[in-house]
Parts: sequence; C-alpha cells; structure tokens
Amino acid sequence: MPNIKKIAEMAGVSISTVSRVLNNHPYVNEQKRKEILSIIEKLNYSQNSNAVHLVRGKTNVIGVVLPFVNHQYYSAIIEGISRMAAKHHYNIMLCQTGYSPEKEIEVLDMLKMKKLDGVIICSTINGWQELEKYVKFGPIVTCEDTVSSYMSSVYIDHYKTFALGMEYLIEHGHRRIGYCVGRKNSINSLNRKQAYLDALSSIQVMPKEEWGFVDCFTVEDGTRVVQSLLQMKERPTALLVSCNHIAAGIVKAAPKSGLSIPGDLTIIGCDDQQIAEILEITTIAHSSVDVGAGAFTLLHDHITKKNKETKKIELFPKLTKRLTT
Amino acid sequence: MPNIKKIAEMAGVSISTVSRVLNNHPYVNEQKRKEILSIIEKLNYSQNSNAVHLVRGKTNVIGVVLPFVNHQYYSAIIEGISRMAAKHHYNIMLCQTGYSPEKEIEVLDMLKMKKLDGVIICSTINGWQELEKYVKFGPIVTCEDTVSSYMSSVYIDHYKTFALGMEYLIEHGHRRIGYCVGRKNSINSLNRKQAYLDALSSIQVMPKEEWGFVDCFTVEDGTRVVQSLLQMKERPTALLVSCNHIAAGIVKAAPKSGLSIPGDLTIIGCDDQQIAEILEITTIAHSSVDVGAGAFTLLHDHITKKNKETKKIELFPKLTKRLTT
Repeated sequence: MPNIKKIAEMAGVSISTVSRVLNNHPYVNEQKRKEILSIIEKLNYSQNSNAVHLVRGKTNVIGVVLPFVNHQYYSAIIEGISRMAAKHHYNIMLCQTGYSPEKEIEVLDMLKMKKLDGVIICSTINGWQELEKYVKFGPIVTCEDTVSSYMSSVYIDHYKTFALGMEYLIEHGHRRIGYCVGRKNSINSLNRKQAYLDALSSIQVMPKEEWGFVDCFTVEDGTRVVQSLLQMKERPTALLVSCNHIAAGIVKAAPKSGLSIPGDLTIIGCDDQQIAEILEITTIAHSSVDVGAGAFTLLHDHITKKNKETKKIELFPKLTKRLTT
Repeated sequence: MPNIKKIAEMAGVSISTVSRVLNNHPYVNEQKRKEILSIIEKLNYSQNSNAVHLVRGKTNVIGVVLPFVNHQYYSAIIEGISRMAAKHHYNIMLCQTGYSPEKEIEVLDMLKMKKLDGVIICSTINGWQELEKYVKFGPIVTCEDTVSSYMSSVYIDHYKTFALGMEYLIEHGHRRIGYCVGRKNSINSLNRKQAYLDALSSIQVMPKEEWGFVDCFTVEDGTRVVQSLLQMKERPTALLVSCNHIAAGIVKAAPKSGLSIPGDLTIIGCDDQQIAEILEITTIAHSSVDVGAGAFTLLHDHITKKNKETKKIELFPKLTKRLTT
C-alpha cells in the first residue's frame, strides 16, 4: 500500500512537501506540486483522497438523521431535502438510527470528522443539550422545534395542527371526538394530545380514553381503528388523525363495515400526502415536504456562510376541506 | 491545523511510526500505539480519520445512483434498500445524478476512493462498459438487466410485465389497446413498447400511434391522459400503464369525464404501490421494493465476501386482478 513516505521517495522530496501538497498548502512550487500529484495518481493513492477534500473543508454531503426511512412522514421530508439537494449538487447520507441514541451520536461524529458538511435531524431520542455540543463542528438543522439557541430549525407546531382540527370539529357541532397518533409518548404525539384535551376542556367535555388511538402509522392501522370502533358501545362522531395514510385506511375500511363517511364518521387527516387528494380527505395540510426543503435551504445557507445566525422557521398548518367532513 | 509531522513531534516518534498507527500496521509497540492515538485524539486530528477507516477497508456506507429521488419507482427501491440497510447497520449515500454521465462516474470514483463499500445503480445513462471498469474497486449491483458479466443485478424484465398485461387484455377480448410509459427512449420503455407491439402483431392488429402515451410519471399525467382520450375520435378500450400512480390519475379522472372504469376503459397498472390496493386497481405486481431489498442483500454478500460470484436475479411479475378490469 502506497504511503506518504513512498510518494516522497518517488518524487525526491521531503514528506512534509507531500503533506503540503495533500493539504493544499500554498508554499509549494507549482511544477513540483504537479509532479507529486501525478505520482499520487499513479500510485492510486486513494486512501487519503478523503483527507484532501476534508482539508478543502467541503464534502458536498449532508447527513440526515432519522429513525427509519420507511414511513410516509420521513419519506416526505426526504423528498423535500432531496429536491433541494439535487439543485445544489449535494449527496445525502441517510442514517437510520432506529431511535438508538448511540447511532445518532455516530452521525454527529461524522460531522466532527468533517465527513459531512452539515446534518439535518428529523427526529431524535437524545436531548437537545446532547446534540448542540456538536454545533461547533458544523451546522445542524432540526425538523422539530427545539429549545436550543444553537441549532436552527424548520418545524410544524403539532399542537396548532390538532387545535385547528378540533376548532373545526367543535364549530361543526361535534362533541364525541376521538384521535389517532403514532408513538404514544413522542413530543409530537404529546403536543397533539394536549391540544385535543385543551379543546375538549374548553367546551366542558370529558375525554374518553378509548377514543384515543396510539401506534397508528399505516393504512393497515386505519383498518384496525375501524375494527375497534365497531366494538364500541358508544362511538365518536369524528376522528382527528395525525397522518393521511391512517386516514386513508379508515376511509377505505369504514364503508365496508357499514359506517358512512362523513355521515357516521367525520375524518380529518394531517399533512398533504397525495393520497389525501386522491381520496378527497379533508386535511390539515402542513407540508412535510416543505419542512425537508426548508431544512436543506437553511443548512445550505449555514454551510455556505450566507447566514450564520440561528433561525427558527415555523410552517403553519392550513385546513383543506374535502369530502370526509 | 495538526498534521502528521506535528503528531510525530509530540509523540517523539518518526513520521513513519505515526503513519503505521494511522494505517493499522501491526508492527507498532502497543504502548506507543496508544500514546500516539491519544495525541491524535487530543489534537482533534479529524482530517485523517476517514483515512483510518479507509484503511480498515470499511465505511459501512453504500452509494445509490439514481436520477432523482422524487419518483415513486425510485422511492420504492430506496424503501427496499433502506429496510435491509437498517438491518445490517449501513448508511446510504443517495446520489441524484439527474442522468448526468459525469455525476454517475463521480459516485463510482467514491467507490474507487474507498468512501463507499459498494454501489447500487438504480438507473444509468452511461453504457455498462463504462461502469464495469469500476468493479475492480468494489462491488456494484444494478437494478436493471445488464449484459455485463462483472456486475450482479436484481431486475424485472419489463418486456415480460407488458407481455403479461397484453396477454390478459387480448384474452379478455380487447383489440383497441393503448399504453402509457415514462421516458420515451429508456431501455425499460423500449422493452415495454416492444412487448406491446409484438402482442398486437400476434393478433394482426396495427398499433395506433396516438394510443401510446409517453412522459407519464405522476397522478397528474394520468389526468392528462384522460383529457387526451376525450379528444380522440376513436378511443382505446384498455390501457396498459407502466406505473400505478399514473393509473390512479386515470382512475380518478375518467369517471368525472363520463368514462366509466372498467366499462368504457379497462386499466392495468404495474408495480405494487399501496395506491393500487387502495383504489383497487388491477396491477402487474413486480415489487420495486423487493428489487431494492434484493440489490442490497446481493451487495452486502459481495461486500462481506459471502458471495464473490456475479449473480443475475430476475424477479417475475404477477397479475393481481382488482376492480379496473
């Protein structure tokens, strides 16, 4: 395996001259520099080519930290990131952490080691204090609202999305309202639940435990929700659903079980996946694609030093009425 | 910036000893090795940490070459790849090339430079001869059938998918048949068209140019197809559609324009996206998710040397009858 010494020997120069060339140091005679580079090329000295671009300080790769790719919310964020990354000629390192705190830190270590120009954190299990330690090594942008003043973020306040949905349902006379969310204790789920509870409390309605569905992510989970509804003595007249894929499952399964939509059951989904448009589901559109695109843009501004200041950008939800309400 | 010379000075050893440590060379006293590593750590000598793992010969990163992420076919492949990558603790470098031949080569250069353990090529604009030159630097697996005997592949024969669809349509009495595909001159589109032409020729039916729709990728393109159909004096009674998102657009738009499905227009989609299940579209299921998962598995076998032989794995399509035929 060729090493720096071998290159120096072949070029008839000192090791420090080779090092200067590898490090793009200015004080090297141009002719000599070309000679050394040609020997490096000849020896196929690829082991250190990373080091060369690291010294240049740019890899044109950004890291994306997310628990897993196979989920419509993360797919949408990736879609937004990749749309902008293609425009700016960046590659994307997808790092699926499965919510392992160690794996999240491994990605930030890549930032420290200059293997990445920046990192977008879609979702994390580590505390923000743990993550913000890495800001000194390179820019980090999050897709969740953080209390950290060191990390920029582009986010949606999921309290507001559910509050908007509850306001609509209450205005339209609903009192027996249920909801579906993903991970029971994630920050987003807790915020959604709080908005739900606050809205019910404002009209002096006691929440009914069994009308809160957790661990809902997919179309199949929507089918499961309908099956549960059918077992209930008293059913909700409306469901606020954290994602349109679950809503799609409900909208498809309900009529087959004799529940008409919106007659027997009003459905409001969230996000703006195409499935909602195709099935004409009323949705609180907060574009996860826009979150991804916005996060990349912000990160790119930080990388290119166009903008050094920490920024918090909130994207606001908007209710789009269709046929399920 | 710390360099190899500085480290050598601080450790009181020669540059070649530092180099041996960085390169995991066995002939270094263990105590010395630890001392040097601790200095490297202290100096935050991150510039060369890439080089260290490069020498170890493993990055746990695979490259994925694809024209763009924002397309359901590539999303499905990425889903398959990422499902398996998560299982084997690999990160995925998504390289969107926009069908630039130079950008494709840039990714293969990363393989050469040992920044990637292997590469999956989803779709390429370069000739296989150009790409197979890089096999000596690391394993490459393609998601298209190649004539190259140096690259493994997991693929679907799109001639067969369209042949299967044509067979079904002809058996069910259709003679006025049209089709929708993506890029007009891509290998896959040309194969699909050939299957279409061969099937028509087998029943002595002349193809009608205007019933061949190209540049179809999205739900909106499906809507556009319906608009074109409405302008025609003579319409096809059936359409074979290369992707279920286009089919979804047709299935949603047709009834609004007075074309009943399958009464006036029979629709067969391809692939197995969930949208086909939700809208109950008859489809020739060839799972692109399985292509991605299979490609990763094969690549991983090559990387871990479980399997050195070039393999060609064909996934066969299967027609799933639903409500659009």
